[in-house]
Amino acid sequence: MGKKVQQSYNFNELMNLDQRVRTHLVNSIVGFRSVCLIGTINERKKTNLAIFNSIVHIGASPPLIGFFVRPDCVERHTLSNILETRYYTINHINESIFRQAHQTSARYSENVSEFEVTQINEEYKEDFLAPFVEDSHIQLGVEFKERIDIESNGTILLIGEIKQLYFQADCLCDDGFVDIEKAKSITCSGLDRYHSTKHISRLSYANIDTLPYDLTLKYNNVTNISS
Amino acid sequence: MGKKVQQSYNFNELMNLDQRVRTHLVNSIVGFRSVCLIGTINERKKTNLAIFNSIVHIGASPPLIGFFVRPDCVERHTLSNILETRYYTINHINESIFRQAHQTSARYSENVSEFEVTQINEEYKEDFLAPFVEDSHIQLGVEFKERIDIESNGTILLIGEIKQLYFQADCLCDDGFVDIEKAKSITCSGLDRYHSTKHISRLSYANIDTLPYDLTLKYNNVTNISS
Repeated sequence: MGKKVQQSYNFNELMNLDQRVRTHLVNSIVGFRSVCLIGTINERKKTNLAIFNSIVHIGASPPLIGFFVRPDCVERHTLSNILETRYYTINHINESIFRQAHQTSARYSENVSEFEVTQINEEYKEDFLAPFVEDSHIQLGVEFKERIDIESNGTILLIGEIKQLYFQADCLCDDGFVDIEKAKSITCSGLDRYHSTKHISRLSYANIDTLPYDLTLKYNNVTNISS
Repeated sequence: MGKKVQQSYNFNELMNLDQRVRTHLVNSIVGFRSVCLIGTINERKKTNLAIFNSIVHIGASPPLIGFFVRPDCVERHTLSNILETRYYTINHINESIFRQAHQTSARYSENVSEFEVTQINEEYKEDFLAPFVEDSHIQLGVEFKERIDIESNGTILLIGEIKQLYFQADCLCDDGFVDIEKAKSITCSGLDRYHSTKHISRLSYANIDTLPYDLTLKYNNVTNISS
């Protein structure tokens, strides 16, 4: 490949950057990320909503999902609410709510609900304690399971089990795959940039003897309809 | 919002799904993911290359990046090589190499290098031990720092420190932000679907008194040129 002009940094050069520059740089080179709103409630019934870009798949059996929190950040209300009441929601964002979602990262005080101040509608489903985001197209109700304190930098990984899951029925494929692009979920890069996506291909399971081929997305017509 | 027909699952319904269906379902509803090739080498100088979709930002000071491994998977060669030699590379993938990248997930035996069999070119830089992917536009050289065993399901989180970083100079913005869309990095959903991205907006830092506004990407013309 004819390489373009490259920028390079070694560890010492990264550490010598201005802190804000290093923060933008290191946060962007991890790649595209899942970006979701996490909804919580405390024991005094005050709700909280915060945007997170560090959501990760942990496992499918049982269904586990994780996210990273910094204890010294605005995210601390989310952390304390989860440790207090154990239940939280993870809600995909889409282009119609991403500005309000971004605004939840402002340092509102503990007695302000970001649902109210950013005018994002709460939604309560069945008997789930924590509030969902009404205008989100993929919504997960999660129960806290495991807290991991990362020695390297004091970050915390919170792992929860998926207890409830809601999404548009027309996004489900016959093999269980959910078309999150059809659900209009978006992705982000760095701390503050949002992107929509465009399908390239879904590839078949890789075998050592054959090359992967393009799969057709076959949507499932049979649905367990909910409310 | 006028809600479309929703599909819903509770925990028991998820657990009662066919295992492959549950795997696709749970892997897709986590959102869009970073997808990269991890390059390693063992003490006998045999290289290995594997695709990972569980790469996460851990922190910027020091620059830390993590990824999740299942000990029972094809990924085990990556894990054992890292524990053996401590150094590895994380390489963004783009549309020109994603099929070969996907193919690295086939269960090749330990004495096969995925670089050779998928015809992805190795690249060695300065004195870094592990091989980079030549046709990747964003390349990280990483040193292993911390291993975390997750009790909930036996998954392992490996955390490393970024020792070397290479990307196209014309993708760097003046505040340190790297335009990974301009670098043609792609994202994935679920286990097997690849997507390109389209810019929606980069938003200003959120303050409680003002609404976020759209930032213009200002590329940096001053570059520390490497090789």
